[in-house]
Parts: sequence; structure tokens; C-alpha cells
Amino acid sequence: MISEHKTAEVSLEHLIRIFTVPEGPDSTLTEIEEKLSQNLNRFLREHIAAEEKPLIDIEKDFAKATIPESPEFVSQHTQHLLDKLVAHSVHTSSPSFVGHMTSALPYFLMPLSKIMIALNQNLVKIETSKAFTPLERQVLGMLHRLIYSQEDSFYARWMHSANHSLGAFCSGGTIANITALWVARNNALRAKNEFTGVEKEGLYKAMKYYGYEGLAILVSERGHYSLKKAADVLGIGQEGLVSVATDTNNRICPIALQEKIAQLKNNNIMPFAVVGVAGTTETGNIDPLDEVAKICLQEGCHFHVDAAWGGATLMSNNYRGLLKGIELADSVTIDAHKQLYIPMGAGMVLFKNPNAMKSIEHHAQYILRKGSKDLGSHTLEGSRSGMAMLVYAAMHIISRPGYELLIDQSIEKAQYFASMIENQPDFELISHPELCLLTYRYIPESVCNALLVASNERKAELNDHLNQLTMFIQKKQREAGKSFVSRTRLNPEKWNKLDTIVFRVVLANPLTNHEVLHLVLEEQRRIAQQAPRLMNSIEQLCNDILAS
Amino acid sequence: MISEHKTAEVSLEHLIRIFTVPEGPDSTLTEIEEKLSQNLNRFLREHIAAEEKPLIDIEKDFAKATIPESPEFVSQHTQHLLDKLVAHSVHTSSPSFVGHMTSALPYFLMPLSKIMIALNQNLVKIETSKAFTPLERQVLGMLHRLIYSQEDSFYARWMHSANHSLGAFCSGGTIANITALWVARNNALRAKNEFTGVEKEGLYKAMKYYGYEGLAILVSERGHYSLKKAADVLGIGQEGLVSVATDTNNRICPIALQEKIAQLKNNNIMPFAVVGVAGTTETGNIDPLDEVAKICLQEGCHFHVDAAWGGATLMSNNYRGLLKGIELADSVTIDAHKQLYIPMGAGMVLFKNPNAMKSIEHHAQYILRKGSKDLGSHTLEGSRSGMAMLVYAAMHIISRPGYELLIDQSIEKAQYFASMIENQPDFELISHPELCLLTYRYIPESVCNALLVASNERKAELNDHLNQLTMFIQKKQREAGKSFVSRTRLNPEKWNKLDTIVFRVVLANPLTNHEVLHLVLEEQRRIAQQAPRLMNSIEQLCNDILAS
Repeated sequence: MISEHKTAEVSLEHLIRIFTVPEGPDSTLTEIEEKLSQNLNRFLREHIAAEEKPLIDIEKDFAKATIPESPEFVSQHTQHLLDKLVAHSVHTSSPSFVGHMTSALPYFLMPLSKIMIALNQNLVKIETSKAFTPLERQVLGMLHRLIYSQEDSFYARWMHSANHSLGAFCSGGTIANITALWVARNNALRAKNEFTGVEKEGLYKAMKYYGYEGLAILVSERGHYSLKKAADVLGIGQEGLVSVATDTNNRICPIALQEKIAQLKNNNIMPFAVVGVAGTTETGNIDPLDEVAKICLQEGCHFHVDAAWGGATLMSNNYRGLLKGIELADSVTIDAHKQLYIPMGAGMVLFKNPNAMKSIEHHAQYILRKGSKDLGSHTLEGSRSGMAMLVYAAMHIISRPGYELLIDQSIEKAQYFASMIENQPDFELISHPELCLLTYRYIPESVCNALLVASNERKAELNDHLNQLTMFIQKKQREAGKSFVSRTRLNPEKWNKLDTIVFRVVLANPLTNHEVLHLVLEEQRRIAQQAPRLMNSIEQLCNDILAS
Repeated sequence: MISEHKTAEVSLEHLIRIFTVPEGPDSTLTEIEEKLSQNLNRFLREHIAAEEKPLIDIEKDFAKATIPESPEFVSQHTQHLLDKLVAHSVHTSSPSFVGHMTSALPYFLMPLSKIMIALNQNLVKIETSKAFTPLERQVLGMLHRLIYSQEDSFYARWMHSANHSLGAFCSGGTIANITALWVARNNALRAKNEFTGVEKEGLYKAMKYYGYEGLAILVSERGHYSLKKAADVLGIGQEGLVSVATDTNNRICPIALQEKIAQLKNNNIMPFAVVGVAGTTETGNIDPLDEVAKICLQEGCHFHVDAAWGGATLMSNNYRGLLKGIELADSVTIDAHKQLYIPMGAGMVLFKNPNAMKSIEHHAQYILRKGSKDLGSHTLEGSRSGMAMLVYAAMHIISRPGYELLIDQSIEKAQYFASMIENQPDFELISHPELCLLTYRYIPESVCNALLVASNERKAELNDHLNQLTMFIQKKQREAGKSFVSRTRLNPEKWNKLDTIVFRVVLANPLTNHEVLHLVLEEQRRIAQQAPRLMNSIEQLCNDILAS
């Protein structure tokens, strides 16, 4: 049986009960849900194990590939989930979890999520979503306006137009980026004379018709890995994703971009799209979008902006200037599950031109009939949930000035943390925060002096040691479970563009305070002492350098 | 302000409250959530408007493209959502909503969904999901075993292997199908000698290297529209999706398939994949998978099965034989949000060979590092939610025999409904149910006799009228809001393969009983009388036919 006050058995009558009779008010599941609703942080603190259990041990609890032959009680299974799953999940909403872009959620979104899930709408078509369809179109309109600031008349005309679309809701930034580049590819290789378009005839015939030797998408060295996936899926090939050099602040060099485009064109390779980054994943920097836009206009490339992370900055009148030029983009990716504080699974892509998505439009007989307002005719995905409701609710309950405050405090906290790091004798800031991301590493004090006189060879040796130390600290800190920073690899000027492993911090959680940041550094300093051999060899190396 | 006991204002302190202080026990939102938790059906009956409001009127409520400049109280906004959104959403879990594949959910999944959302894990990487990663791998293992029935040792070796993957969780069947065909394309155009593979060099160079004139994916005429999208996105072109004729039961003809393959090969077009359908979207029929598998093996094509709908039938030992041959597929799509009764957004693709996904593997520096067990290195999507938890819980709480009962009663209900339709003098069954889908239409009694003697020309005329009548009835029934069937277009033998509009019924909801089905037909019969002109001209036409 399925409900809790009976023995576990399988019968149709009992199965019907699970669709009609809710868990009782005293059931384990109801109790757990209530505790979580009353105080999520306490619930997680109580239930998430403090110290990390090795993955290999966790796997033992998830080792059976057989679908159970007998049913479990809801209460029993809930307890199992608490012990085996929740206990070893990640406390992403903890103020000291500052390593990735996933963070805390406003409380009101949790009951709303449950309502959304209980309604079980499918946004692919009106017949399974009705009011959710205009709602989603409105949310896309709001984001479109946030970026492109068109007049009321523009939205009155296009927002709900059956044959047009201001963008698409999708599961995340990756699908958003793929959608944008899919549209760009299809528009670049559109129908012309006897050629009926790449969407119909495929890439091989398109290339032959247009006489190109290859296609290219350009993006800075700091572009997100999803673009490589996009180039692969879309048949461009990963080599068609051309890296452009960045300046010392991880921003694309417009001159280098211009040169690459010229070079590609000389080789008869069509650079059909340029991606500007508004908030690099690793360092949070923003490309000079206005300059990139100008180049794209001159060269006839689709200009896409990957603002999955940074797009929410447009909510702040104080900082939206950082994204100057985004309004010139042909398309923009924004993830609401990042800095708009929506649960996982709320990506969006917006197109400046309401006709842009025509090139990927598709229809079917049982739904998406021509002239219908079904959202599914302009999305890469098919069936989709009503996530747009959560974005809509958050826009109304938090409002633009509320988001502005959230954005501003994140950026200012990152600036504070950067200066805190700079004031430590044994930490080194690697990338300055432009948004609320920064990177740094621990360097024992002795390194600083040695660095001034070290040969390139010695510097490389030192860097290797520091890389090992950074990895050691990051891993230990994660395992201890008190706080979490992530790590990545950069190539900073200061370190001769050597591969440099750094801590990466994302300060999105509004609950992260200065105290937490102090503790993060203190803990890292302490962990470093747990690697005496590594610390000694760094010390030794520095002494050698200074002595020579 | 944001919470309910204060006035609405914007300040950082108040914003922090929304992340730390839940809605009070007497708040509107808590009340609504509780009502919904206690009795979802009553809640929806009370809140969803009985009659359909025209879409154009609903749109007026979602017309503003400006993000609000002042915050709303949670209570006030919740009431707004009830009035404007929930009231005009679709009651997909109603027993008389039998038009689409979205239906009722087990109660226990709603509190579990809230827990899943509150945990806000991101499955792209271990660092933001920990135990959720092995859990998702286990769920994929369970589905893999359901299809392929490998030994324990197989799963012990591969299920948790960092460099392998038994499949991918994704937002739905469309992404699952695209993933399968992406893998198939990359494996067909793999690295060889100096050629480094389509994933690196792109489709144009791959075609030149392999010397093909085109690529093709074959599927029956009844294949899902997502495959056309896949062909477009992957650069094959929609024309590369080759339709194969079906028999009178909407199943692919193996001989026609063989012929098409030969024809393509003669034209130097590489048929790199064949898609077998296990549960066509419109009629629920299943291709002869074993025969298709044999042909694929002979011809060296990737064999993909789109079992988004029908895959769950494997849970039933009584009906799994319908999918005989699925174990020979190279890849299979299954949607858990269909017949596994999971909320929207739980698609899966499984691969027979744990090495298959190597051709789409990708890495990044800050996550997905080589050797990591991060799930994101084998998915089309990036950030993803912990939906796998819901599948896992349902597998344990419902168990395989529970699912078997659910599947069996759906199929048997469809058989019952089919014979009910056949016993009416004024209804015509168009497609017999193989799973729980069937199609039919209303035909006034006079049509039957006339049909026996009608010329082809007259038959076509009659069919046109019946198509209009079917569309009329379907629309009116939907608008009245008591019950809902969908409609589609088929080309049945009986009607000389003319375009025939039919009602389409999906009987997945376990709460749909025989009484509901009787009422659906009665209502349709009654609505027909509301189109007297159309009914008269059908009558007249039949008289003319019989008189001539």
C-alpha cells in the first residue's frame, strides 16, 4: 500500500488512493514539509550531514538497478530520503556556500512552486496551459523590455501575436544559447532563389549553395562551455567556435575580434555569429558590448549576448550601465534561476526582432497548428512546466527596485571582499570583481618577496606548487562542510599567463555577510597549515630564489 | 515590503526577510497551499473557472511589459494569481480531461516536489548536488535495466563510472530525442585517419571526408514532430527526415523501410539512424521494433526508439510484450512525466552501450573536469534540477507491480471505450487502441448507409463536412469546460486516405471511469445538434447519395 495508515500492498484501489487522498496531517512527509516550510535553514542544518561522506560511500546507497518489486510506505521512504539523500545533498542556500551560482531562494517561491507543480500545466500548447501561455509571453515581454526598452505600442503589437515571439523560455542558459545560435545559423543560411534554407536542406547543401568553406561563431576565451556544445550540436563543429583574446580584465579585445573576423572571411569561412559575454562564468566580467555590437553591424554577424549570469544586473539603475550596448544585441540569454533567485530550470532567450524566430518555427497536426498561439512552435524543447509563473510572481513581489537592492548589495559585497583579500599579507586577488564574482588564492607570505626577483623558470615552479596548494585547500574546505568556494584555472598576466588554479567566489546569496567572508579566509589559512610538506617546499623554493 | 504583516516597501532588511522568514501560518499563501494539499481536486474545482474565457480576454490580464516599480504583498499577489492565472488554467488532472498526455499526479509527489525545490540542487555537477548525482545515475540504471535487462555486474561496473553514462536525464522527450540523434550523428561521422570527427570539424567537412551527398533519419509517417526539429537543429535538414509508410494500424512497414534505405544509399545519402515509435503521439501504436532492429543491424544504422509515451508499458509484465525488440535499440527515449506520473519536466534517454555518449562528451575548467563524475559532461542541457528524486521516490512508493496495475487499467479502459464507441450508431472508431490512446469521430447515423454507395467524389465531400463537424464539436466541448478531448488529422484507409479530422483520447488518468466516458460521448452527440446547418447539409448530402 501507498498511504501510511495501511500495510504496504498493491491493489488498484490503493493506487487510486495515492491520486485522491493526501498524506495525513500527522504523516512523516507532512511533518517534514512543515518543518522545512517553517525554517528551511534550520531544517537543512539539522538534516545535511556536517562532514562530507566520500562519494564512493554515497554511491553504495544508490547501487541497485532493479525497480523495486514491492511498494514502500510513504513515511518509510521519506525517512529513507532524509537519511540517504537530503543528508548528503549540498546546502546551496547556506550563506557560506559561495562557490557557485546556485544560492538561496525567497520563501514565498516554495509554496508557489508546489502550486505550480500541482497544476501540472504543459506550456507547449494552450490546450494544456491556457492562462499560463499569455503569462509566459508577458514574462518574456518584461525581460525583452528590460533589455531593449521598446515602446508600449511595440509590446501591444508583438507580445501576444500568434506568429511572432519575443523569445523562448527554456530549461537553462545552455538551451537558451543553443536556441539563439540555431536561429542565427538558420537566418545566415536562409532560403534564397532555388535554395529552400538550411532548416529544410541541411548544412551540407547550404554550404555548397552559399559557397562557404566553413562557419564560425566568435567568443572571447572566457566564453561558457555551452557554446562549444552548441557548435557541436548545430553541425558547425567545435573548431568553428573561434576564441578571441581578452584583455587583463577578461574582456574581449575588439581589435582582436576584428582581426579574427577578417582572417576567417579571407579563408572563406562565414563568421555568422559573435557572442558577447555579460558576466563570464569564471570571473564575472563583461565584454565591451557596444564595441562588439558595432563590429557585428559592420560585418553582418548575428550579435548574441550570453547574459545568463549578468543579465539581472539590468534591474539595477545603478549598475545597468555595465551592460551598455546589450540593447544592440540580436539575442540575449538570461537565467532567472541565477540572479533572479528562481528555482533551477528557468532560462530565457530574448530576440530583438519579433520575426527572428521564424526560421526555426515548426508545426504539427495535433497541436502547434498554424496561427495557434501555442508556445511550442518557437521552442527547442517540447513539453515544459509552468516555471514562468515563478518569475512572474517574483517580479511582482520583489519588484524592480527590490532586485536593484539585491544586485547592488551583491556587487558591493564582492568589492568589500576584494579589498579584504588585498589587505591580507598571504592572499592574492586574481580577478577584480566587476559583478559579484572574484577569484583569488592563498600564497604564503614568503612568496611575495621571492616573486619580485624570481626567474621565469622559478616562477613557473612556484606557480605549480601554489596550484597544488590551492587544490588541496579547496578540497579540504569542501570536505569539512563549513564553507565552500569553487576553483577554476585562469591565465593571469601577473603569472606570465601560466595555468593558474584559483579559488572562485560568487557572492549572490543575500545572507552572506562580512563575517562569513572573514571566516572563509581564516579557514583557508588554517587548512594551508595542514599541508606542511607543500608549505615547506614553497618556503624552501622562496628561500632558494631569494638566495640566488 | 514583502511579507504580509507590514506595508509594502523596498529595503534591504525587508528583502533579507523574504529569504529567512516564511509566510505566517495564517497568510493567504499558506492557507491556499494547505487547501490544495488537503484536496487538490476540490481546490481546482473551486478555483478553475467552469467556462472558458476567450484567450483574447485572458491576454488583457497579461498585457503589461513593464516590470513593476513597487512591490506587492505576497497575500495580495497570491489572490491575484488565483483570480487571473489559476482560474484560467487547465484542469489537467480532471478525470474528464482525456485529450492530452498530461494528467493526474500522486499526492505524495507534491510535498516531495517542494522539498526538491527547496533543496535547489543543480545536477550539472557534484559540487552542487552530491547525493543527487548517484541517485540520478541509479534512476538511469533502473530505466536502462527495464529496457535492456543486463546483469547486476553490468550495472555494478557502469552505472557510477565517471567516464561512462547509461543515458541522460533531460527536460523532456524532445531533448531526449535530439540527444539520441546527436550521439548517432557523431558516431556515424566519427574521427577516422586524419579526420578528427564531426564534433570537432563540423558537418560540412565530415560530409566531404566521408563522401556522402546527404544524411537521413528514417521514421514512420506517425513520428513525433520533435524529430523534424532534431533534423533541423543537427544540420541534417528537415528533408533529411524521411517518412516511411505505415500499415493500417499506423505501424511502420518494414518492407517500405528497407526500400527507402536502399533508395537513399543508391543516392549516396547515408541513413545513419532509424527511429522506431513505441506509442505514436496521435494513435498510441507501436512499430514492429524487432523487425526494425534487424534491418538497422543489417544496414548499420543507429536504432533509436521514441518510447516517450509507451516506454512505461515495460513496467507491465502483461503488456511489455507489445514493445518486443526494444532491447535491441541503441537508444530509447522515455518521459517519466507521461505514464510514470511525474510532474512536467522529467525526460530520459538511455543508451545500450555505456560508451555511446563518448562522442558528445565535453569538459570545462571550473566543473566537468576530466575524470569527475559530474553528470553535466554527458547532457545537452547544463544546469538541471533534481527531478530524478521524484522518479526515484515514485519507483519505490508505487513499485513495479503498482505501475503494472496503472498501465493495465489504462489499456483496458481504452479497450472498453473503443467497444463502447463501436456500439454507438453515430460514432466511428478511427484507430483501435494498442495502448491507452484511440481516435474516433461523430458521424450522424445517415452517413453509414450513404457511405456504402458513395462515389469517391461524394465521399470526399462528406468527409469535408464531417471534418468541420468534428472541429466544431471539439472546440465547443473544450469551451464548455466539462470535458476535453483533443483533435488531430489522420488519413485512414476507410476514408480513402483523405485528410480526416478525428477526436483523440488519451486515457492515462486512473480516475477516469466508464461513467466519464459515457458522458463524453453524450455531450459530443448533444453538441452536434448545436450545428443544425452543418447537420442538415450532411443529411442532405446523404440523401442525395442514396437517391442517385
